[in-house]
Amino acid sequence: MAAPLQHKVLLTEDEMPTRWYNVLHDLPTPPPPVLHPGTGQPVGPDDLAPLFPMDLILQEVSGEQYVDIPEEVLDVYRLWRPSPLFRAHRLEQALGTPARIYYKYEGVSPAGSHKPNTAVPQAFYNLKAGIRKLTTETGAGQWGTALAFACAQFGMECEVWQVRASYDQKPYRRMMIETFGGRVHPSPSDLTNAGRAILAEHPDSTGSLGIAISEAVEVAAQNADTNYALGSVLNHVLLHQTIIGEEALLQLAKVGETPDLLVGCTGGGSNFGGLAFPFLREKWAGRMSPVVRAVEPAACPSLTQGTYAYDFGDTAGMTPLMKMHTLGHDFIPDPIHAGGLRYHGMSPLISHLYEEGELEAIAKTQSECFAAGVLFARTEGNVPAPEPTHALAAAIEEALRCKESGEEKVILTALCGHGHLDLPAYDAYLSGAMSDREWTDADQAAVAEALTKLPAVSQ
Amino acid sequence: MAAPLQHKVLLTEDEMPTRWYNVLHDLPTPPPPVLHPGTGQPVGPDDLAPLFPMDLILQEVSGEQYVDIPEEVLDVYRLWRPSPLFRAHRLEQALGTPARIYYKYEGVSPAGSHKPNTAVPQAFYNLKAGIRKLTTETGAGQWGTALAFACAQFGMECEVWQVRASYDQKPYRRMMIETFGGRVHPSPSDLTNAGRAILAEHPDSTGSLGIAISEAVEVAAQNADTNYALGSVLNHVLLHQTIIGEEALLQLAKVGETPDLLVGCTGGGSNFGGLAFPFLREKWAGRMSPVVRAVEPAACPSLTQGTYAYDFGDTAGMTPLMKMHTLGHDFIPDPIHAGGLRYHGMSPLISHLYEEGELEAIAKTQSECFAAGVLFARTEGNVPAPEPTHALAAAIEEALRCKESGEEKVILTALCGHGHLDLPAYDAYLSGAMSDREWTDADQAAVAEALTKLPAVSQ
Repeated sequence: MAAPLQHKVLLTEDEMPTRWYNVLHDLPTPPPPVLHPGTGQPVGPDDLAPLFPMDLILQEVSGEQYVDIPEEVLDVYRLWRPSPLFRAHRLEQALGTPARIYYKYEGVSPAGSHKPNTAVPQAFYNLKAGIRKLTTETGAGQWGTALAFACAQFGMECEVWQVRASYDQKPYRRMMIETFGGRVHPSPSDLTNAGRAILAEHPDSTGSLGIAISEAVEVAAQNADTNYALGSVLNHVLLHQTIIGEEALLQLAKVGETPDLLVGCTGGGSNFGGLAFPFLREKWAGRMSPVVRAVEPAACPSLTQGTYAYDFGDTAGMTPLMKMHTLGHDFIPDPIHAGGLRYHGMSPLISHLYEEGELEAIAKTQSECFAAGVLFARTEGNVPAPEPTHALAAAIEEALRCKESGEEKVILTALCGHGHLDLPAYDAYLSGAMSDREWTDADQAAVAEALTKLPAVSQ
Repeated sequence: MAAPLQHKVLLTEDEMPTRWYNVLHDLPTPPPPVLHPGTGQPVGPDDLAPLFPMDLILQEVSGEQYVDIPEEVLDVYRLWRPSPLFRAHRLEQALGTPARIYYKYEGVSPAGSHKPNTAVPQAFYNLKAGIRKLTTETGAGQWGTALAFACAQFGMECEVWQVRASYDQKPYRRMMIETFGGRVHPSPSDLTNAGRAILAEHPDSTGSLGIAISEAVEVAAQNADTNYALGSVLNHVLLHQTIIGEEALLQLAKVGETPDLLVGCTGGGSNFGGLAFPFLREKWAGRMSPVVRAVEPAACPSLTQGTYAYDFGDTAGMTPLMKMHTLGHDFIPDPIHAGGLRYHGMSPLISHLYEEGELEAIAKTQSECFAAGVLFARTEGNVPAPEPTHALAAAIEEALRCKESGEEKVILTALCGHGHLDLPAYDAYLSGAMSDREWTDADQAAVAEALTKLPAVSQ
């Protein structure tokens, strides 16, 4: 009998990285600055102080290559980290591919996704700054769940505005947030000026991440003991997520592998950046040369269909202006099941790297993604969240190309969360009730309309 | 700063046990035989052949101390095993206890519970015997999900009768079974004689595990290429689950610990037996002396309120007669959220050991259990299934006793599944909508009535 197949590459708690990697240090060219919407001038730390603690603001602009992870954060990370790296032998066998597919599995976290990697340090730095309560937005609920978990770990309050499409479709994450002690409001809500303005115009609005951000930011800005926490997009968020890629590097080294292709799903970009940035560092240092490919939903394709311009992070236009790939801050995407990918913009860091040619990007329809998710569940066992099924669909596409070509490529992807709380989406797919469409001329017209509302500085 | 706390004790795939432990070999006294309901004589292998493959029948009666795990089963186990052993530092800190609480976490399996430990070998041995389809019952859905996962791994069909109370309350596990490719019917159904008979008498029946077993057994008995699979109670099921305790022994040894108390929840007894049996072996060999405590729901207390007698495993009276602690095979317990613990009987092996004084048993109401579950989620992060909250409530009770006495006891429990698909139960608890009551005189009268219907051989 052949030697047993090794399915998992594990690290001990002792082997867990103790530093985050700051890609800003190594960028071939510096990214454009974040601008104040009133003055059009670069924002300084003081501009951000109403929302964020100084530790996070300094991380946002830091030029240091590495940032030490505080021991209080490491101690919470160790509840689930290091996360396992899997070799997807059974998926490979089902595909008949000579490719070797590895996936980094973040679904082992208590919240079920990669989001606690940044929720925990964000809660910690806020607590250290004397903040007692955090507000945030959430789409499918992954981020809200993560922040509620993190706040529970540090004895803080957590208040979450959840996009109504997900609040109604997927009540389980609301329940999980409440189990962790958090409070949840459907967004748009009548608790904020931003929410009331949307409801006045669109009483049946199913919401968007942009609207929910406006609501959470408004409440945080009005209360001295309350700050806002963002689950993606910003530099410090992507910084915290680099622990994914740092661990994956150590794990692949343990089995003597070097990736030929990295694929990750992109909503705001934090899972993707967290996986890819440490590998880009290795590439820039000449130690490997992987292709790095972002996969976005066809219904919300900010990289492949958006414009690279200064835009607001939220719908109401309360945030600083970031140069990013955007569909326009008031573009409201279809209520697809991958709620975490329903964001009009893309992380400035990812956008910049895409402009520089360091990344590729493709878009996938949700049926193709769920087909990949079902095949993955039936072979590898773990049921993926809708978001990473985008990455799986692209990994499978590449593995099938390898089957044609005979190439033994090493493909690395991130399964950034489990789909236990997204099963109604699988139910819709399996019962043939999933609506699915390609990007259309009407979509492009809606984006063109939204882009006419970009702030003046973008022109 | 103090040395970092170690939260997890891991084993590599190489360190995974390759044998199951058969407690029958070491029992101080042999258990009573299983009887044929018609003849009142002990059943032989041929009596069980319509339902089970010969490999499992031989395991059911084997006197060997160990059974080698087939490589095909080990390969699927390695998708998630060895499972982690956690030290619950943060729970201990919240309780202020000097006790050291360890929990073996089976929620990392693809199905989210310990059930795949036996589903996988059961599917494998059936496939080896030429069987193409398995039928089964499921309560909350943990077992049905596990069997559907296992059947997907071996390319087999899977058909599941789910207790209607759970089918209606918790649709997510039905969806997960279907994601793995299985089919689900609410029980009682009109697809079987057993189901139709119940519906004729109780059209609004919320079902029970006993009824669902009758339906699944009926279909398996009628089809040559179809067998039945049971998720608990039987000797071979508990045998397969001993990998839990075997791993936990290795893991505790790695950190130099010996348990003073084992606590586990008991429905049919497989999680409890799987954890406890290897430790009982060590106790009988004089290497440790843990107290072993079973925790059952107050609404279905087969050990603490039942009778030790021969009874059927199912409601319709189609199974062989087993000597076990039973509430009577037609006793229908309250539809509590811990659906996996709603079974009228207790594994014959566990019942025998209880009679022999090797185990203690206590019962807990569901509110006490959910209070423990919420505390656990907010400290340790992982949200437990309703079933293991019973064990957690008992572990916490003991840890608080240690706080009074100052004893530094080592408590080991099994978190046999995550509660991601049971969040409506947490929602009911947190919103104050959970019905909860102690065992009453009316319950006792219902059991007395059910016990009058025990088969003649029991008298």
